[in-house]
This record gives sequence, C-alpha cells and structure tokens, in this order.
Amino acid sequence: MRVPPTIHITEVGPRDGLQMELRVLSTAEKLELIAGLASAGLREIQVAAFVHPEKVPAMADAEALIGALPLHDQMHYSALALNLQGVVRACRTAIPWIEISLSAHDAHSRRNAGLSTTDALAQSGPMLAMAIGAGRKVRASIQCAFGYETPEDVDIDAVAVAASRLVEKGADRLVLADTTGLAAPPTVRRMLAAVAPIAGSIPVGLHLHDTRGLGLANVMAALELGISHFDTSLGGLGGCPFIEGAAGNIATEDALYLFHRLGIATGIDISRVAALSRRLARVFNHPLPGKIYRLAATHLDFRPR
Amino acid sequence: MRVPPTIHITEVGPRDGLQMELRVLSTAEKLELIAGLASAGLREIQVAAFVHPEKVPAMADAEALIGALPLHDQMHYSALALNLQGVVRACRTAIPWIEISLSAHDAHSRRNAGLSTTDALAQSGPMLAMAIGAGRKVRASIQCAFGYETPEDVDIDAVAVAASRLVEKGADRLVLADTTGLAAPPTVRRMLAAVAPIAGSIPVGLHLHDTRGLGLANVMAALELGISHFDTSLGGLGGCPFIEGAAGNIATEDALYLFHRLGIATGIDISRVAALSRRLARVFNHPLPGKIYRLAATHLDFRPR
Repeated sequence: MRVPPTIHITEVGPRDGLQMELRVLSTAEKLELIAGLASAGLREIQVAAFVHPEKVPAMADAEALIGALPLHDQMHYSALALNLQGVVRACRTAIPWIEISLSAHDAHSRRNAGLSTTDALAQSGPMLAMAIGAGRKVRASIQCAFGYETPEDVDIDAVAVAASRLVEKGADRLVLADTTGLAAPPTVRRMLAAVAPIAGSIPVGLHLHDTRGLGLANVMAALELGISHFDTSLGGLGGCPFIEGAAGNIATEDALYLFHRLGIATGIDISRVAALSRRLARVFNHPLPGKIYRLAATHLDFRPR
Repeated sequence: MRVPPTIHITEVGPRDGLQMELRVLSTAEKLELIAGLASAGLREIQVAAFVHPEKVPAMADAEALIGALPLHDQMHYSALALNLQGVVRACRTAIPWIEISLSAHDAHSRRNAGLSTTDALAQSGPMLAMAIGAGRKVRASIQCAFGYETPEDVDIDAVAVAASRLVEKGADRLVLADTTGLAAPPTVRRMLAAVAPIAGSIPVGLHLHDTRGLGLANVMAALELGISHFDTSLGGLGGCPFIEGAAGNIATEDALYLFHRLGIATGIDISRVAALSRRLARVFNHPLPGKIYRLAATHLDFRPR
C-alpha cells in the first residue's frame, strides 16, 4: 500500500464537535481545550462558526473566542461561514483561515443554509472575494459531497461544478465533506478521481463522519489515492443534526493511530489528544464515539508498524 | 479494489459478546437472540463456550442451550473449547462445529488457558482428534495472532508453527484472532502472506476486535488479499477481559454495511441485525460500540454502490 509521507490533520472538534453538545462550553473552557490540542501538536484547528447564535448557541462566542486566541504563524486556526454575513463577521476578527462552505445537495442546502444550491454557489464568489480581499486563506468545503439521505443522492457532476467554481474563485484548499456519513470506499475513489484534476495543485481534503462506521475504511481508500488532508474531531465528538444517534467525525486519536501504524509521521501526541477526549467525555457526561480514548495510556503504543 | 464475490460471516455475539456482560441472559433469551440472528440470514453462529462456569458465568448453560437449538444442516452452529475437557463436553452435545482455540502468545496463554503455548499446542492434537473422531467440523483459532500487549508482540513464526500444526491435525478452518485489537493493515497483510500458503485450500478467517478503531480498516486490507471469512458480533458487543474500556468485535451490521457498499452480496438483512442490537443495548442498559444500530431504519440504505 502506498501512503503519503505526511498527513495534515485539521482538528474540527471545537467547532463541528462542540456545536452538537447540549452543554455549551464557556469561552475559557474552549480556550483551554484549544491550547491542549495545540500543545498535543495539532497545527490546524477549526475553532468557531459564524452562524446564527440562536440556531447554534455553542458558537455564539466566536468573536470573543478568536479575540482571545494566542494567534501566531505556526497555528492555522479557522472558522466556518455559511453565508456573506458570516464572512463579514469573520473578517472583523483576526482569524487567518475562513472556511466557506456550501452544500452539493439542494434539500440539505435549503435546510442548513436556507439557500438553493444554485444560490449558494452564486454567493460563494463574493464570499471568497471578501475573505481573500481581507487577506485570509480560504478552505472551501462542499457538504453532502457523498449524498444526503442515501448514497444514491451522490452527484459527482454537481460536486465537480462546485469544485471548479471554488477553485476558480481562489480557494486555497478544497474539502469534500461527508456530512451525513454516506461515503464508502468506492464513492470516495470515484469522487476523488473526478475532483483531483479540477483541484490541480490545490490540496483536496476529506471531512468524514463515522455515522455508519466506515470512517477509517474511507481514509484507507483516500490514502491510496494520495490524499493527505483530513478533518478529524477529538474523541469522534459530534454528530449530525439531521440523523438522531449519529456518531460524529472520525476520531482524531483513532485516525492518528491508523496513520502511525501505517508508518506515517504526524508529529501529534496521541496520548495527549486521548486525555483531552477523556476529559470531555466526563464534562459532557456521555461516552464519545471514539475508541482509543477509552483505553488506559498503558494500552497505547504508537511506534509505527 | 478487487474483493471476494461472497463473504462468510460467523456471528460470535452470543459467545464472545455475551460473555463480557454483567447481566447474564437466560437460556430462553439466548435462544430468542440466536433465532433472530438466523432469521436475519446469518448461517454461522457461535453460540457457546465450554469453559469453567465459575470463570465465565454467561456460558454456564452451554449444554442446555445447544440441547434446545433447532439444529439443521443449513445452520453452522459452533461452540468454543480451550482444552480437552471442553472438547469432551462439546462432543457430548450435538454441536456440529467445535472451535479449538490456542494462543500464540505465552503470557496470554497462561493467563487465559493456564497453559504455556508449547503445552497448548501439544494439547491441540488430541483436541482436534477427539472432535474429528466425534464427527465434528473444527474451526481452529489462534488467539493474539497480532500481538498481546503491543503490536511488537506479534510473532509471525509462532503463528505459522501453530497454523501448520492445526492444519496437519485436520482443522477445517483457520481463524486468526486479534484478541486485544492490535492488528493494523500492514500486520494483517504480512500475517496473511505467511499463513495463506500454510493453509492451502483451508479457508483462513479473521476474528477482529475494534479496540483501537481499526477493525474495518483491517477488513479492507484482508479483502484485498482475498480473505472472505470474518467473525463479527452484533452491535460490536463484547470487549476484552484484559483491557478495561475496550470495544468488542467488529460490529456485524457495520461490517455488513461495508460489504454491501463494496458490492458484495451477503444474503443477510442488516436492518434485522441492527434491530437485535438495539434491543440488546436496552437489555444491557448501555450503548454498544457499533454505529449502524444507532440509526433509525430510515437512515439505512443497503443498495450496493
């Protein structure tokens, strides 16, 4: 199996994970979590979303949080925006990366962003222009890239059209998001085969949810195609607002364990990430979906092979 | 990706899963569970272990359970034995398949079976002879084939020696067990490359635990090598007596979902397996490690892609 020599992990737990929890962490608690992730070696962390504070109370402190972050060049902090207002808010902060996100599936787009896919795509141009004009790097993500309600919903052409537009408008990175956890190795391969030529030299990442347990199987398929950018969430924190009982993103420490066992160096300390997950499971008072964090540190072994 | 055209699943939940639960199911409850699994389409089910009833109270009713099973040629029921006394007990019942199991790792063998690996291997000859003499088919399994406490414990030569002996003595199937969940795709490949030539025409199966989240990634690696026999447990029920907090076997319905999405027909109804897992999660009053069973049936989609 050929694998990429290095892996870029974007930790999305503080955004995609925390937004699903009933208990809203304080800004101070979030800052402590983010500091813990940074000192475990994570260099790309998504910390906030500029969305409606009443719809997503856990993200209401986006400005305050970013204002209090110890920003420096080594840390690629990002925040999510789903519309122009979100980008406006983001550009008033010092966040260096803005994620501009739209959905490939019309019903999902209307439900999640209140816009048709056509309108969302049209709006992405000004969103990118504004972010780039403000000197920010842009992660452009395509939600529901692998389907919305069933795997048959997958629309490679729609994803390709969106990818072209986002690249053309200056995105620094493309992210294909499996929002409802419908990806499987064959669709991962077909989608990446279609999108990679469009992306050219722009890195393509995957944002995978483990809703149906295939998260790391999909990572394996993507690694074989040379993909080296993955979004993960500590402890697999998160879920899906559209699917009751759904697991969250693939767990950071479980993905790291896979990478280490495949001989890929990540520079990230799995034990420290696992310790943060264990703490969050106590704070939220329920088990998180990940596996590694449940084990005592003595059962962890990270030497490759 | 080349995959085998068909898959043989051995459902081990009623043995490997139930033995880890504090609440012991009654024989009637077990029979209902096994009947449910059979009507979901599972044809190979491990139903009991002939082990010390005080050590494993959940398996104390092995004889009564097997006596009450609706045995017929279409169903390959099996029971586990770790020593000669176990095989003697099994042969007094009508169980058609006996699993004869030994460990590749000395410390684990002494802890789990009270025997050195040398003594366990010596004993496996008479165990196989007795089972075969009684007209039974034999699954011969090698525990800790992928390590015991760390992945460095893996001993390909020891596994190969055990595999040769078990094949020579007439095993109908070899099963490599990742008892403590230490397998990773590279070790799966290396181990199968060593064992497949020894097994020759005898099928080699994998018994994988999802302790560190790599269960289905390991399945992917094995499928690519043509392996088509897998042990799974409904809901991922189970754990490991040596690792607190460990997840159980790979979940039957999650593995089935992967196989269906890879276009491999299994003849097994995922929704019915998931419904049984949901019921068990209520009976045991804790979530099981699997993912699929948590979803409402409307979020399941099994059409192959």
